[in-house]
Amino acid sequence: MSNHAKLDQLGLQAALEQARKSYSEGGIPIGSAIVATSSMEILGVGHNQRIQKASPTLHGEISALEAAGRLKAEVYRGATIFTTLSPCSMCTGAILLYNIPRVVIGENTNFKGNEDLLKSHGVEVIIIDNAECKELMENFIKEKPEDWYEDIGEATAS
Amino acid sequence: MSNHAKLDQLGLQAALEQARKSYSEGGIPIGSAIVATSSMEILGVGHNQRIQKASPTLHGEISALEAAGRLKAEVYRGATIFTTLSPCSMCTGAILLYNIPRVVIGENTNFKGNEDLLKSHGVEVIIIDNAECKELMENFIKEKPEDWYEDIGEATAS
Repeated sequence: MSNHAKLDQLGLQAALEQARKSYSEGGIPIGSAIVATSSMEILGVGHNQRIQKASPTLHGEISALEAAGRLKAEVYRGATIFTTLSPCSMCTGAILLYNIPRVVIGENTNFKGNEDLLKSHGVEVIIIDNAECKELMENFIKEKPEDWYEDIGEATAS
Repeated sequence: MSNHAKLDQLGLQAALEQARKSYSEGGIPIGSAIVATSSMEILGVGHNQRIQKASPTLHGEISALEAAGRLKAEVYRGATIFTTLSPCSMCTGAILLYNIPRVVIGENTNFKGNEDLLKSHGVEVIIIDNAECKELMENFIKEKPEDWYEDIGEATAS
């Protein structure tokens, strides 16, 4: 069990709540939360907005960063970012830009992002393998495959 | 001289116009444009919005991608992205996410981003070394160093 068990439960629930919200809106069910590691203060939450806002860049993590607003470098460096799904290369790059040292991932079965790049920069990466995170994504991919493949820059398999 | 000389002139001017606009608004002078490589149609332009919209994620390239809206995978794969300054890890990741195969960079003197990561994924990277791109950034960094260092996730040098 992680030293951060309470933090990780709180953060994953906040991210999952965002994923559920997005799914209920007809959107891609990926949620994220940025939490101050020591104080457990939630700095920002967000979810994928491709469908809701016709946005190609508001992935879950980018939305959470955006919701947190402008923060000092040291705030990011003391934060943990939670995401219900393994981060794509853009969100990985955002995590590296701001030197967020800890990433907690709900699942990486439906999509495996750039976890190795994060680790190679010394970022701590934790995979929770959460059943609800997986189920939301599985359902969405079955229901709206074109939207999902667009979100990861791929043409829909024909 | 590049085979794409006309395209590159058009795209860099569109990006530079955005950088000038941002500077005139008191913002970080980094602009970007996404252009269809064959038709030279401008798909989207944007500039850094850290100051104007209190945004930590709307870098020039992300703003241009956002302005272009939802595009099919093949449109990105036939595009060139122009940016007045070498792309940070987030913007590099966005370019890789969407498999944009060609990146034209105004300058990389004031900041050198993840050009090597782009190249390692087969992306064509062209450095223009444009004097106006450099001058705008040099001026901004002198005038508002805290905003600039915040934009790249660094604490201001004391």
